[in-house]
Amino acid sequence: MFIKNAWYVACTPDEIEAKPLGRKICGENIVFFRDENGTAAAVEDFCPHRGAPLSLGYVENGKLVCGYHGLAMGSDGKVDSMPGQRVRAFPCVKAYAVIERYGFVWVWPGDQAAVDPAKLHPCEWAESDEWAYGGGLFHIQCDYRLMVDNLMDLTHETYVHASSIGQKEIDEAAPETTVEGEQVLTSRFMENIQAPPFWASNMEANGLDPNEVVDRWQVCRFTPPSHVMIDVGVALAGKGSINAEKKDRASCIVVDFITPETETSHWYFWGMARNFCPDDQALTDRIREGQGKIFSEDLEMLELQQKNLLAYPNRDVLKLNIDAGGVQSRRVIERLLTAETER
Amino acid sequence: MFIKNAWYVACTPDEIEAKPLGRKICGENIVFFRDENGTAAAVEDFCPHRGAPLSLGYVENGKLVCGYHGLAMGSDGKVDSMPGQRVRAFPCVKAYAVIERYGFVWVWPGDQAAVDPAKLHPCEWAESDEWAYGGGLFHIQCDYRLMVDNLMDLTHETYVHASSIGQKEIDEAAPETTVEGEQVLTSRFMENIQAPPFWASNMEANGLDPNEVVDRWQVCRFTPPSHVMIDVGVALAGKGSINAEKKDRASCIVVDFITPETETSHWYFWGMARNFCPDDQALTDRIREGQGKIFSEDLEMLELQQKNLLAYPNRDVLKLNIDAGGVQSRRVIERLLTAETER
Amino acid sequence: MFIKNAWYVACTPDEIEAKPLGRKICGENIVFFRDENGTAAAVEDFCPHRGAPLSLGYVENGKLVCGYHGLAMGSDGKVDSMPGQRVRAFPCVKAYAVIERYGFVWVWPGDQAAVDPAKLHPCEWAESDEWAYGGGLFHIQCDYRLMVDNLMDLTHETYVHASSIGQKEIDEAAPETTVEGEQVLTSRFMENIQAPPFWASNMEANGLDPNEVVDRWQVCRFTPPSHVMIDVGVALAGKGSINAEKKDRASCIVVDFITPETETSHWYFWGMARNFCPDDQALTDRIREGQGKIFSEDLEMLELQQKNLLAYPNRDVLKLNIDAGGVQSRRVIERLLTAETER
Repeated sequence: MFIKNAWYVACTPDEIEAKPLGRKICGENIVFFRDENGTAAAVEDFCPHRGAPLSLGYVENGKLVCGYHGLAMGSDGKVDSMPGQRVRAFPCVKAYAVIERYGFVWVWPGDQAAVDPAKLHPCEWAESDEWAYGGGLFHIQCDYRLMVDNLMDLTHETYVHASSIGQKEIDEAAPETTVEGEQVLTSRFMENIQAPPFWASNMEANGLDPNEVVDRWQVCRFTPPSHVMIDVGVALAGKGSINAEKKDRASCIVVDFITPETETSHWYFWGMARNFCPDDQALTDRIREGQGKIFSEDLEMLELQQKNLLAYPNRDVLKLNIDAGGVQSRRVIERLLTAETER
Repeated sequence: MFIKNAWYVACTPDEIEAKPLGRKICGENIVFFRDENGTAAAVEDFCPHRGAPLSLGYVENGKLVCGYHGLAMGSDGKVDSMPGQRVRAFPCVKAYAVIERYGFVWVWPGDQAAVDPAKLHPCEWAESDEWAYGGGLFHIQCDYRLMVDNLMDLTHETYVHASSIGQKEIDEAAPETTVEGEQVLTSRFMENIQAPPFWASNMEANGLDPNEVVDRWQVCRFTPPSHVMIDVGVALAGKGSINAEKKDRASCIVVDFITPETETSHWYFWGMARNFCPDDQALTDRIREGQGKIFSEDLEMLELQQKNLLAYPNRDVLKLNIDAGGVQSRRVIERLLTAETER
Repeated sequence: MFIKNAWYVACTPDEIEAKPLGRKICGENIVFFRDENGTAAAVEDFCPHRGAPLSLGYVENGKLVCGYHGLAMGSDGKVDSMPGQRVRAFPCVKAYAVIERYGFVWVWPGDQAAVDPAKLHPCEWAESDEWAYGGGLFHIQCDYRLMVDNLMDLTHETYVHASSIGQKEIDEAAPETTVEGEQVLTSRFMENIQAPPFWASNMEANGLDPNEVVDRWQVCRFTPPSHVMIDVGVALAGKGSINAEKKDRASCIVVDFITPETETSHWYFWGMARNFCPDDQALTDRIREGQGKIFSEDLEMLELQQKNLLAYPNRDVLKLNIDAGGVQSRRVIERLLTAETER
């Protein structure tokens, strides 16, 4: 069960440059390609002729040609042509609404009559010269909600990411969680501490002394269906923390688009947007590499947590204050799922 | 559900030279070996002593000796001896009728009382000096009937095998399908075309100018349980096509013995028999290598088509004129299956 | 279904030196570690916080710290602490009785109220200067009872281990099986034979002429839940066989602790204890290497026997005189299982 009437990140534009891309999203096999206008498009990955995956084919004149017997599929899910055949009465496949924006290809897997472009998650950082962005994609074998839990409780940084962004003070600062409509916010503020290695390095990149005492913040923001944006940063101590002036701080937005594949696997589009030194591509690359290494430390934990939960299906887990972000996010998901099912 | 009262190719003689061969055929675990006379034999691959696979053992004096505790099994499925034991009352295992002919070891997996050597598929090319044969074996993870479909509709050559035997004219020549008893024939004739690379090379081998305009033909012949023989060739244009004299043509029989393993996997014995330059072993090797490469292009498509069909179990596929060969072949299989079940 | 109220070998001490060890035993996910006193301990491998495997964490001050969010678990299964949390009301996990002795860490997976240290299997050879021991661990994909069968019927040595300890005379000497309470004994004596390679080499190590005629014995002793100790050896012919004086013999105890993992997999702790040249570490290493090679020859057979038995679930296997050891051992297991279930 997934929220289906929503925009999910499906892929990045480079993934559909050379050839069509087959990807399962919310349990549906979908193929992504570019139509005759170069516009990103998506249809079911199932040739109505004999059931071959259309993603094994190629694009010709904006049509997706099946690599088995040459049926040419349009971006509207209607068969365009097939050698030696009259195709007018051929069955259609489902066509999916697609938007290409903010450096991503987004798909609406659910009811196509309910598609609403206004519901796309805004990413101001993606369209401003003052920001730089770098990111990547992981394929993870666990329920996407375990990743939401993970990102809404950054206590785990102390343990999973001890050598980069973890520090004891995270544990000691209790997080606060609030719900505003469909949005869940979990905030944590730490004062008068030393910056951990990842942030010390960013302070230096932004022209600050990495050894100075800082205030640090983490503000996790869940929005449906499964996006988590995290304001993170440090500012010289006493300069206003999250509200400090740009010259006194180093801060970023951790960008997490979490796209379900099956009930126990998902596509994790992770990245970081920063508004200091936006033109420093080497810095972007260095941060991406560091973040990729940090995030990969979560993989084994999440996948084995999933296995353990499957092995003990009847055992409850705790819902502590630090878990409130994940717990509230799951409630929002449940609420929207119920609403969608009842429509 | 498989037709079981029929001869299937089980293996090639070289596969049982050095040691016994375990192979699952039509859902049955079978071990193949040579008895005291050197005759190919087959029994269930299950030691009646403790259930070990007999195929892990060895052959001694024509008996199949279990590699665990030394039970010696005869080719009749009766236990011959076991150290320190009286074996007369030991349970038997199923023994399978086996015929070694035409360069293959054939097995009859069904009712042994119904075995009929006359039902063996004839292969004249295998016993004539005027023909040469080369072939190979693939293990493919899909329903054997998807392979029958594949071979009875050669339209796919245009797409899957574009660089070797595919050409646009295949699409443009409508195939014709006829049923004669249990045999299904799908024929396609193309006139006044250029030979594609594979055939141009064979024309040259047969002393013809590869650039000359030709007539090309493909005549696919399905016979139960799952054999597909395909007459393929080119002749200089206007010289009588499939009936042209030997000096004006290059032609072959594509040999396909398709042996079910499970409901979603099969053993594919492929090869090519040609009646030009039969003594040119280098040519045989070259053709086999080329054919192996061409046929391996089908593997990914067939295996992913199988996955797609399993993922969408309730969705129908089309039955176009080009699919008539496969559709009619499946009807013959269904008819024989019903007859076998009702016996 | 496993006998759970019993001591099983869980691991060797070196496996829990550097970090906690997660291991499934009798279907239960268990994590092993050392507490503040250095004592081996075991609890369920499931963090009560969010279900992460505790075995991914680390030990700090004798507590097992979860590697996800820092919950610290005590060896009693009670949560000791968690940063920023009051843990008194946290749910416990199961704690398992553990004994470290004889070079192994033993666990009692069942009812902790029934734990009885007196039931630990005695291993005199492990605590005597006159003995040396070497061994290893295999992870095998088959029912642990197939391994018991294997070890209680050494006829298989003739076939599986033909080049090391197998010899025709094993087949020819009928084994005798007796049951004494919960213990099953299968004995085989061979007289006036040549020592096979493995024993010839041990005779030499013990100062005997390897070419002399010997008497050979194998006495397999099953004790619940699944231990098999085998007295094996050779003595110069006519010197009293198993009762010969030390100077006229070479003999060992084959040590087999067989710990179920799932219904179709187990951990196999194998080794050999000998009471000649106990201080010769090079000999110990050589024997261990040889034994490891010999025992690995059984793996493929056992795993494929398991697959065959699963493929033919309704087919009976034979229970010959040579199988009596395994058959009787299974009866003891059944009896104890029934008793345990009825408690």
